[in-house]
Amino acid sequence: MEILKERILQDGKCFEGGILKVDSFINHQMDPMLMYQIAEEFVTRFKNENINKIVTIEASGIAPAILVGYAMQLPVVFVKKKQPKTMENMLTTTVHSFTKDRDYTVCISNNFLTSDDRVLFIDDFLANGNAAMGMIDLINQAGATLSGMGFIIEKAFQEGGKILRDKDIHVESLAIIEDLSNCEIKIR
Amino acid sequence: MEILKERILQDGKCFEGGILKVDSFINHQMDPMLMYQIAEEFVTRFKNENINKIVTIEASGIAPAILVGYAMQLPVVFVKKKQPKTMENMLTTTVHSFTKDRDYTVCISNNFLTSDDRVLFIDDFLANGNAAMGMIDLINQAGATLSGMGFIIEKAFQEGGKILRDKDIHVESLAIIEDLSNCEIKIR
Repeated sequence: MEILKERILQDGKCFEGGILKVDSFINHQMDPMLMYQIAEEFVTRFKNENINKIVTIEASGIAPAILVGYAMQLPVVFVKKKQPKTMENMLTTTVHSFTKDRDYTVCISNNFLTSDDRVLFIDDFLANGNAAMGMIDLINQAGATLSGMGFIIEKAFQEGGKILRDKDIHVESLAIIEDLSNCEIKIR
Repeated sequence: MEILKERILQDGKCFEGGILKVDSFINHQMDPMLMYQIAEEFVTRFKNENINKIVTIEASGIAPAILVGYAMQLPVVFVKKKQPKTMENMLTTTVHSFTKDRDYTVCISNNFLTSDDRVLFIDDFLANGNAAMGMIDLINQAGATLSGMGFIIEKAFQEGGKILRDKDIHVESLAIIEDLSNCEIKIR
């Protein structure tokens, strides 16, 4: 997705340790016009999949997910990082965040993820694939079907993309970062 | 907003202690088509305010905020509940959550909230007004201007709405819950 790649090269910032900061347009401040184009690109790439629900994990995935849901006219569910007091019947799994260096339990109500669901998972980043693996666990617990996984940015030098594609999952990443060495963004 | 009120009466669930659960269409599973209508209603109600930025707090505010931002063609910033490793210059404040019964520190980069900003704050619920008061503190720290605060649902039997309106803030709530006694939803 050319416009996204150009924006990453223009406004993305690179830090030691393979960190790419896109917080001026993706995951702190957000550009809704770019985000809508991102959503339309996901719709095109997954148009042949039989999807009836969009699922994401709070917080950075919610903006692209709601726009994909709006464009596809499908319900969107976000997996929660804290268990609400009023959630009774839920599925949980543990996700390790390398960025934040901790494990956290995430949950989804089993009213909103069931064996009838054919899920498109949307998130901002694919790096080690931990959030994605947590999502796969929740989908398996629910007996739902995973129809595809869409990421705005994939870090090709981390293993998440390979792990997911080796499972024959339909993965689409709109910008693939080849390398961030020497604080230089190399993108394909 | 009639369609929202009807949906709350149809799909909202009431629990002991004044809890209204709208997690099948607002804040866990989300209905993007309703959410877009909500965004359009906010645009109409705040059309005479001189706004250049939409701000919300993660996570449930992000979906309505990105749609308001898209409809108004303005950038959207979400205040974060965890401080990212790579955020250097930021403003922080403490918010007490009655729902989750704990204090948490929220933060926003001072690159994305400045004295040039005229902010429309968007959130899903207005109850005690704690998140809103935290937002006002961040806006004051930044020297920004608060142009309005829009909430999908206000609980009129809690004090947040009165506190904000007493400060002469332009507050708009799309559905106002009068009472939840005896687990019955009374809405105006």
